[in-house]
Amino acid sequence: MGDDLTFDTTALALPPGPVDLTALPTDGTPGFTGDKAAGEAALASIGQELADLQERLWAGREHDASRRVLLILQGMDTSGKGGVIRKSLGLVDPQGLKIKAFKAPTPEELEHDFLWRIRQALPDAGYIGVFDRSHYEDVLIHRVRGYSSPEEIERRYDQIVDFEQELVADGVTVVKCMLHVGADEQKKRLLKRLDNPEKHWKFNPGDVDERALWPQYQRAYEIALERTHHPDAGWFVIPADHKWYRNLAVAALLHDTLARMDLRWPVADFDVAAERARLEALVIE
Amino acid sequence: MGDDLTFDTTALALPPGPVDLTALPTDGTPGFTGDKAAGEAALASIGQELADLQERLWAGREHDASRRVLLILQGMDTSGKGGVIRKSLGLVDPQGLKIKAFKAPTPEELEHDFLWRIRQALPDAGYIGVFDRSHYEDVLIHRVRGYSSPEEIERRYDQIVDFEQELVADGVTVVKCMLHVGADEQKKRLLKRLDNPEKHWKFNPGDVDERALWPQYQRAYEIALERTHHPDAGWFVIPADHKWYRNLAVAALLHDTLARMDLRWPVADFDVAAERARLEALVIE
Repeated sequence: MGDDLTFDTTALALPPGPVDLTALPTDGTPGFTGDKAAGEAALASIGQELADLQERLWAGREHDASRRVLLILQGMDTSGKGGVIRKSLGLVDPQGLKIKAFKAPTPEELEHDFLWRIRQALPDAGYIGVFDRSHYEDVLIHRVRGYSSPEEIERRYDQIVDFEQELVADGVTVVKCMLHVGADEQKKRLLKRLDNPEKHWKFNPGDVDERALWPQYQRAYEIALERTHHPDAGWFVIPADHKWYRNLAVAALLHDTLARMDLRWPVADFDVAAERARLEALVIE
Repeated sequence: MGDDLTFDTTALALPPGPVDLTALPTDGTPGFTGDKAAGEAALASIGQELADLQERLWAGREHDASRRVLLILQGMDTSGKGGVIRKSLGLVDPQGLKIKAFKAPTPEELEHDFLWRIRQALPDAGYIGVFDRSHYEDVLIHRVRGYSSPEEIERRYDQIVDFEQELVADGVTVVKCMLHVGADEQKKRLLKRLDNPEKHWKFNPGDVDERALWPQYQRAYEIALERTHHPDAGWFVIPADHKWYRNLAVAALLHDTLARMDLRWPVADFDVAAERARLEALVIE
């Protein structure tokens, strides 16, 4: 990357201590000094390196049967979870992605512990798994809507940390992003969906009902972030009012995550010279 | 698309009658008159329209719970099945793709009919499914290597046609592509993999053993194409010596396939004006 295209992803890490989302701007561009045009150039540049790193991860999947990445995307409606998948994850080989969107649980899923369906959707070795919503819904909407008792929700924070530590011990690099969108920006985006018939399919009347609980959701996020920010899998808070910045920030985070994994190309387990000779000698009629 | 960027995909359809692969050039560019630079521009242009069409397919998945696409990619080693996934399928939202690479069957898969694992990998409504190899391996390598009896292979051609007709009746648009690479080009590509340590992971000594059976594989492909070219799901043969052309051809085929599906944006099943009023009236503290 050129100097002017660098992104300092450490600026995205959740600060330690009590979480106050109102103190974290939704329209900032922390870690990046350029404007939208520079951001789009940086995304293209980072995207190429990211695709290269992802190919290394993929190449190693049969040699190191554990290393994989799990990107968890959380955020209010319209915060851009789908946009990040299209624009940031769209930069890598789709073959190496395992994307799972979690909706309201099915009757079968409800018969099990809340982590059951999560475990079933984990990426295999060599993959980047992407969760569009996740087990965090079980402490977010469940808290706001009272779908589970306070005692149960208390237990879940600890279960989530245990679960994520288990994943990390099992070779999964966990990256947790909260896409932090402002209430005004959400309103603009919901209105846009209503104004454009080609976007009606993205709108659900339930979105307005959820929006009515905005302060409760922000509080639930603050508690969830605070209780589940642990050294094995810390939270990143991504200001999400600017779509170009949001896409760039997540791509940069993934890039840095993969770069730190020190991914090497697998070493040949065959005799290269002998194979070349065999190939050269072969005559096809 | 501008006039100079058009691609006539009808030029890719397998001609009726006996199949002679030697009569179909591997280094041609049928349906497209431009050079590589024009081809890359055409791919970008077609890619945008393809992404738009794919979003419509995806948007409709809860309204029409059957429509989906299945792209079957077959071809000799190095013909570019993975490259097509990266470069052509990489143009659409990865969320709407279901990609499955078929390897040698597992012990569990071997306990079932050859179509069992295929059925399990079918795309759900709204998805573009992509098979990197497929049930055709069960009449290709099985014929060449004698893994199944001639009688069994004879039965399979008919079973495959029946199966694909059933898929089409079930709302699946099936697109079958044979990536047709030349023997000399394959040799160049295999040597390149051996020459570059970063590509060793893509090489397998078994690739040379398979290459030694080149004429037998070509014959097996000819018979398979001939026996399974039916009106519900005809074959397309894609000259694959030029990677840019191959990627463009498959993207153009997918584009035309989706365009013919007459995909409309779903109509809102809620009162748009009422939702707008509700949203406008809502005050977030």
